[in-house]
Amino acid sequence: MAKVIDFQTDPSKYRHWRVEYDGPFANLYMDVDEDGGLFDGYQLKLNSYDLGVDIELSDIVQRMRFEHPEVKVVIMQSAKDRVFCAGANIRMLGGASHAHKVNFCKFTNETRNTYEAAEADSGQKYIAAVKGSCAGGGYELALACNYIMLTNDSSSSVALPEVPLLAVLPGTGGLTRVTDKRKVRRDRADVFCAMEEGVRGDRARQWKLVDEVVPNSKFDAVVAERAAEFAAASARPGGLTGIELTPLKREITDRAVSYSAVEVELDREIRKAVITVKGPEEDAPADMDAFTAEGAQAWMLRAARELDDAILHLRLNEMELGLWEFQTQGDPGAVLAHETLLLENADHWLAAEVLGLWKRVLKRVDVTSRSLVALVEHGSCFAGVLAELLFAVDRSYMMEDEFEGDNRPMAAITLGESNFGQYPMGNDLTRLQTRFWGDEEAVEAAKERVGEALEAEDADELGLVTYILDDIDWEDEIRIFAEERASFSPDALTGMEANLRFAGPETMETRIFGRLTAWQNWIFQRPNAVGEDGALQRYGTGLRGDYNMERV
Amino acid sequence: MAKVIDFQTDPSKYRHWRVEYDGPFANLYMDVDEDGGLFDGYQLKLNSYDLGVDIELSDIVQRMRFEHPEVKVVIMQSAKDRVFCAGANIRMLGGASHAHKVNFCKFTNETRNTYEAAEADSGQKYIAAVKGSCAGGGYELALACNYIMLTNDSSSSVALPEVPLLAVLPGTGGLTRVTDKRKVRRDRADVFCAMEEGVRGDRARQWKLVDEVVPNSKFDAVVAERAAEFAAASARPGGLTGIELTPLKREITDRAVSYSAVEVELDREIRKAVITVKGPEEDAPADMDAFTAEGAQAWMLRAARELDDAILHLRLNEMELGLWEFQTQGDPGAVLAHETLLLENADHWLAAEVLGLWKRVLKRVDVTSRSLVALVEHGSCFAGVLAELLFAVDRSYMMEDEFEGDNRPMAAITLGESNFGQYPMGNDLTRLQTRFWGDEEAVEAAKERVGEALEAEDADELGLVTYILDDIDWEDEIRIFAEERASFSPDALTGMEANLRFAGPETMETRIFGRLTAWQNWIFQRPNAVGEDGALQRYGTGLRGDYNMERV
Repeated sequence: MAKVIDFQTDPSKYRHWRVEYDGPFANLYMDVDEDGGLFDGYQLKLNSYDLGVDIELSDIVQRMRFEHPEVKVVIMQSAKDRVFCAGANIRMLGGASHAHKVNFCKFTNETRNTYEAAEADSGQKYIAAVKGSCAGGGYELALACNYIMLTNDSSSSVALPEVPLLAVLPGTGGLTRVTDKRKVRRDRADVFCAMEEGVRGDRARQWKLVDEVVPNSKFDAVVAERAAEFAAASARPGGLTGIELTPLKREITDRAVSYSAVEVELDREIRKAVITVKGPEEDAPADMDAFTAEGAQAWMLRAARELDDAILHLRLNEMELGLWEFQTQGDPGAVLAHETLLLENADHWLAAEVLGLWKRVLKRVDVTSRSLVALVEHGSCFAGVLAELLFAVDRSYMMEDEFEGDNRPMAAITLGESNFGQYPMGNDLTRLQTRFWGDEEAVEAAKERVGEALEAEDADELGLVTYILDDIDWEDEIRIFAEERASFSPDALTGMEANLRFAGPETMETRIFGRLTAWQNWIFQRPNAVGEDGALQRYGTGLRGDYNMERV
Repeated sequence: MAKVIDFQTDPSKYRHWRVEYDGPFANLYMDVDEDGGLFDGYQLKLNSYDLGVDIELSDIVQRMRFEHPEVKVVIMQSAKDRVFCAGANIRMLGGASHAHKVNFCKFTNETRNTYEAAEADSGQKYIAAVKGSCAGGGYELALACNYIMLTNDSSSSVALPEVPLLAVLPGTGGLTRVTDKRKVRRDRADVFCAMEEGVRGDRARQWKLVDEVVPNSKFDAVVAERAAEFAAASARPGGLTGIELTPLKREITDRAVSYSAVEVELDREIRKAVITVKGPEEDAPADMDAFTAEGAQAWMLRAARELDDAILHLRLNEMELGLWEFQTQGDPGAVLAHETLLLENADHWLAAEVLGLWKRVLKRVDVTSRSLVALVEHGSCFAGVLAELLFAVDRSYMMEDEFEGDNRPMAAITLGESNFGQYPMGNDLTRLQTRFWGDEEAVEAAKERVGEALEAEDADELGLVTYILDDIDWEDEIRIFAEERASFSPDALTGMEANLRFAGPETMETRIFGRLTAWQNWIFQRPNAVGEDGALQRYGTGLRGDYNMERV
């Protein structure tokens, strides 16, 4: 599976989904093209999906927010008869490398989270209108919607048959959402997750697996009725006009991935990617009208989209680059000015969407399985939203005092109000709260310095960076760190970082990326699932997996 | 490694630890016998440990509570020069099966939790008095103590070198306790966990890795001073006299493990263990004096110890028995009477200890990687503390109406006040709160029925059992369930159950058994750690692990 996976798409290229827009309603049809798999070797039958199908869905959800702000209710449904969605394609999973399986699940989880949060964040509510079989990843698609309607006929059911059928978990949030979101009683969840055939009709509603069961003859009418009710109840203003998410400017070579505001250098020798976010060169738009006129070219939106694409590109296509080094270059004042316009207009739909996109991009950073470091160099602009990168990384280095021959402005960090609540992590804490977990005074001390250009000594005293280094030590220390990191086992680092990044409380979201994902990854290594006689390999042969029956 | 592992021991058999009792103080010396490994093939050098060492520690912690209630402060220290503890023995880990590694870590985690909670639960505070190198599992021993003192000399340090040295995680709570308990800043935790040599002196205190750093010359005196202060501050009454934890009566055959109040039948054909807890045959002791006189023979204590041993025996020695079926037989009124004596005297040290033991035994059930089912048969006594078993299992079946030829008393469940707070799970919720997560009304409805003998229909209506079945269906349904469960992949079941059992919030404890353990288990499957050229196999050869550098 060594081809470049591109996360950029647009409606003209969709093969698996289509959307019909109808004022405040969007009918989202899943209609997977059997022959449209991202790789060879499998057919996407019965609305089963692979990463390519999910890349389209992710694009749709994003465009729904930016290009179709008039939409208040999205009705996710199948365009095929008798099947809503059969889940992730098993032959694809059976043939995929461990790394691809893990990354596939991470991306699909992020996409589920994104449309699940669309109601709270954007006032766009997703309804799953389920006709036909809705199994495994198919039911997980529905679970991430905030209202599930099931038609009442003999072929329509919801199911999580992974454990009995495939010896893996419903790992795209399924197990966690069943208990934490749907609040299904745990013994019923046990029964449900141990049955191949699933649950239908009234029992599905009684067990809280769906919100509503509707006779087949009335299904479409009742779905429309609910959609109208939800639209009427939405606090979102009506009649908004979107902006176009124009194609990203991007150039990919063997040594670099270049965008307009983001530059990625690939240092294969030391297995490092240097991701530089460039601050805005132009003045901040005067008001939201001016921002809207700039549209996808506005720096705050452009930089977020480019950074998001860079992250996804590196994750899937550059797996041996185990260290990501974040840098920024530009004018901190300009970063803050561009961000401030949005913060001050947070009730403007587009401002809210751009800020929400940054929240999601930063969350992607948090759950990325790479060692993350930030370098605060002279001339950098870790201010406001870009300072979040500094608190997302595993450790950071900052230049202290002047460096010979370097006449860029002195390295400084500028905190904004936005660092204290605008971009929460998945654990619902700010990155600074997580950093200073158990030490609220340190958070308060940092907050008192909002707006100041904090040079190395101050930043160190406030605990905002790991190391401050002068001209003499800088280069050696950074090099030694990168070499050291490159010498460690990637797996151990992944486990370590996944634990250290999320101190304290957990949420459904962190439980999905933590507990559930970690168990699923373990199972994805176990011969009972992935061995020659394991369930994934034997799927479709008529033979069940041949299992080692030892419980560990 | 196919020998029977026995979790029963007593001070006369210790090879690795010794305790000197001195009024309110206990000096606990780790002095591992190099040649005393549980298995062949490794030497326990430098106070490194294997499961056998931990079984002794677990026994000590238990006896400290029951046999030495006069103790208020336990000072954990090394009896060896220049080393506190080198952690889990690497050669043992390198040679151990995956199953053994996982079970070893689970038991050591449970032991750490047990003495960590001794301060809150029993007023016995553990100090780690660290002289010499304290690395990996050694530092994790210290982390579970509630006060860490480090001497300030050139050879004394604390370290978590697992990631750089061994390509595995500090998985015995290390990563979680560093951030959640010690509240080490996450970037410092990253630095600390990526260095082989560890941290010593003032930096260890500044980074919150230890509570106090003391000059070597004054170390013993200051440790004694702190111990005296902690003892003086303890709310625990002085001068208590303990009871003896006499050896369990136990008979192990190929078909059964028999105790006095617990009987385990081993059904190898269907891979099921039937664990029957027998209610008390004797009257409840009249008061705590009478209870104390009965000592280890008192039913509440005896049944808890026996059940604990049965769980540990089955976990480590019967790994192919993937289904545990809990049953009870006896008089529910008698169970409640025996429990009530303790609940009404919860301020009596021994009553508190016995209730605390039940809490820990029930937590062991929660984190056991077996499918758990309970059968509420006629003649059963799921009342009060034993009803907790019913809420710990993955699903339950209850007899409804009379069964032909069965003249035992009608199956009923009797809730006690104790089911609403006395035995919290690791997530700090009661098992009923977890069961009814998001439905506090259901908890309240159950609470209103405390003391009633709830027969099948009532139990079903209150949601206390999964299925109620009459004479016609009972046998078939139970058999089908057991057969079905036996046909599934054990790994998938482990992952599923670990997720479904813990709805809602998390605590440091659940994060250790969830997020951290799951990642560690994944790493324990990865070639970078356990492959032929992986770090664990190569340890001691002078060669580093040869790693696949792909990040997944």
